[in-house]
Amino acid sequence: MRFHSRKWVKPEDLNANGTLFGGRVLSWIDEEAVIYAIIQLENKRVVTKYMSEINFMSSAVEGDIVELGIEVVKFGKSSLTLNCEVRNKMTLETILTVDNIILVNLDENGKPAPHGKTKIEYVEERLADKEN
Amino acid sequence: MRFHSRKWVKPEDLNANGTLFGGRVLSWIDEEAVIYAIIQLENKRVVTKYMSEINFMSSAVEGDIVELGIEVVKFGKSSLTLNCEVRNKMTLETILTVDNIILVNLDENGKPAPHGKTKIEYVEERLADKEN
Amino acid sequence: MRFHSRKWVKPEDLNANGTLFGGRVLSWIDEEAVIYAIIQLENKRVVTKYMSEINFMSSAVEGDIVELGIEVVKFGKSSLTLNCEVRNKMTLETILTVDNIILVNLDENGKPAPHGKTKIEYVEERLADKEN
Amino acid sequence: MRFHSRKWVKPEDLNANGTLFGGRVLSWIDEEAVIYAIIQLENKRVVTKYMSEINFMSSAVEGDIVELGIEVVKFGKSSLTLNCEVRNKMTLETILTVDNIILVNLDENGKPAPHGKTKIEYVEERLADKEN
Amino acid sequence: MRFHSRKWVKPEDLNANGTLFGGRVLSWIDEEAVIYAIIQLENKRVVTKYMSEINFMSSAVEGDIVELGIEVVKFGKSSLTLNCEVRNKMTLETILTVDNIILVNLDENGKPAPHGKTKIEYVEERLADKEN
Amino acid sequence: MRFHSRKWVKPEDLNANGTLFGGRVLSWIDEEAVIYAIIQLENKRVVTKYMSEINFMSSAVEGDIVELGIEVVKFGKSSLTLNCEVRNKMTLETILTVDNIILVNLDENGKPAPHGKTKIEYVEERLADKEN
Repeated sequence: MRFHSRKWVKPEDLNANGTLFGGRVLSWIDEEAVIYAIIQLENKRVVTKYMSEINFMSSAVEGDIVELGIEVVKFGKSSLTLNCEVRNKMTLETILTVDNIILVNLDENGKPAPHGKTKIEYVEERLADKEN
Repeated sequence: MRFHSRKWVKPEDLNANGTLFGGRVLSWIDEEAVIYAIIQLENKRVVTKYMSEINFMSSAVEGDIVELGIEVVKFGKSSLTLNCEVRNKMTLETILTVDNIILVNLDENGKPAPHGKTKIEYVEERLADKEN
Repeated sequence: MRFHSRKWVKPEDLNANGTLFGGRVLSWIDEEAVIYAIIQLENKRVVTKYMSEINFMSSAVEGDIVELGIEVVKFGKSSLTLNCEVRNKMTLETILTVDNIILVNLDENGKPAPHGKTKIEYVEERLADKEN
Repeated sequence: MRFHSRKWVKPEDLNANGTLFGGRVLSWIDEEAVIYAIIQLENKRVVTKYMSEINFMSSAVEGDIVELGIEVVKFGKSSLTLNCEVRNKMTLETILTVDNIILVNLDENGKPAPHGKTKIEYVEERLADKEN
Repeated sequence: MRFHSRKWVKPEDLNANGTLFGGRVLSWIDEEAVIYAIIQLENKRVVTKYMSEINFMSSAVEGDIVELGIEVVKFGKSSLTLNCEVRNKMTLETILTVDNIILVNLDENGKPAPHGKTKIEYVEERLADKEN
Repeated sequence: MRFHSRKWVKPEDLNANGTLFGGRVLSWIDEEAVIYAIIQLENKRVVTKYMSEINFMSSAVEGDIVELGIEVVKFGKSSLTLNCEVRNKMTLETILTVDNIILVNLDENGKPAPHGKTKIEYVEERLADKEN
């Protein structure tokens, strides 16, 4: 799994127990999944459709660095299923994992539409392809 | 189910498809669940431990009013299991439901602790009890 | 008075005295009043026109739950006058009250327009009416 | 009246009518009043106690510059009464005025305490005094 | 140099060392520069093009008041060069200075366009001019 | 250069020209630099001391994905000098570069302190070292 975005845990990310607020992590995960899908599907109109169960295994405190990892589970016809892990960068302790996040590719009318993708692509390759 | 908190969908709550961003809703749900648990357990040290799978059924657009409903599923020894529905106030269309959100009651050291509650209480009753 | 939305007092809601920042409460009240008016007037184009004087009676600290109650004072022709109370959910202590908040119903050009409402309606009734 | 802080009206400051959200302006006013009081009373522990009625006279749209003006009405023993005007910088049109905002000076225990001030001071004078 | 906007340092403005987060100050400076340019160039379409080096000389802590000063360095044909100082209002200690911030005036297509200004104007004068 | 954190450009990140607000990018850079330094120096008490000049070369619009790349320029005794590039993920167009961002390592009293690091380390290696 490749870890990309990192977050710096700030006062506004904490609950009254002084640990990272769960709702904040969920919001980070969804944004990261959407970002990943936008890049892969080359379409800005992507929405989250489903998330499998979530176990909060550990937490983080103020000043910690948290990083988000995403992996592709499956390319559907108009969907993309991702797997996500959030961990504490300093200790590598897992904060939570979500096995399946399903995102849907939409057309200009907001209706599901085939995305035509079947495997992960890197932006560098696409640019190279265009140059050839 | 009783619906309490209401949200006014603003520009910063939208995804690039112009509909309510999923991550925002997840963050609202978690906050509402924590609020509900803090009131019932009479303890500010409450954290989310688990969320069952989430299906995004419909959405909302800018200016819509969204309301959050919470119901108790079960009082555990040191936990509280809630059920949540988010719906569009104007149409009563369901945006999403989460069958089980498990929150844990913590002591001053951040360790799970029995909360001693077995049923829903309303603040009015508690005040009345104190006066008797 | 029915209390709906609840807020969880977080670090960013505090002043340097460690108590709930007045400006935050004012912002919450205005949003709640607008939400109430949008639902009653069935129109998203509603703006605040007037607020009567405000006495800050008590406050709240981090981790407290604050709830907002709204009551209709009067249905005008193109306006709606509301009364608001903010209280600490755990103690039921009143934080502040605003006797009159006047909101105005606007048409598509942003001009005041009659809203045709004379009494409180609940969304459930409206849906029932449509089904009959 | 001297106008100090300026705000750039952004998407998140708007209501569904596309004009500046009233709650946002109220929050700006309270913050500006607190800032003014902290500087004058040379004490960070200052809280808002009262605001007189508020008339929303005009508004602003995205990209407008709004400026906030504050004037002292009266120095009390442990309080400070201010007068505030919010206006659109480009047109000088008044958005709203608040005749009386009463702030209270607190001691370390959060209790009202005499502030010993009777007139407006400018920071430059204070520094000069210290150098003499 | 005239100091205008003031900021109240809140928990979310701090780094893990408990002092004012540099990124927040940079964001405040850029907004203040844009506000200044919008007022002077009488055009809302203004973007930042360049900032000269930045030395963080001192900092601020929670509850401090920080003020931002702007001065014109040069009126270009389609640009405006500003100079900025950020200081702690209570101590007058300089937090940082930026010698040159270059902003560009854009037309409706987002292309650089002459602004026709050669010197600082005050809004009061412009209004007076219109009345004459 | 390795690119890590990615940002999804939202309405609140835009200026009135509809492009990515410069102040927002500066804030993202500083946070990313601090995150990088915290991880490398294994110390949460890190502050930004200096940034070299900044040229805004291109921009981004709503819904775009922006990514931030960081590279080490030099390990000082109590400082760390970084180089940063911000680019548009879809086009790989550079938004801006900052040649030198100097961060300082602080001790518990907020004073500069030697960090004892001389080269980049990856968290995986550190964990492996601890296990040996």
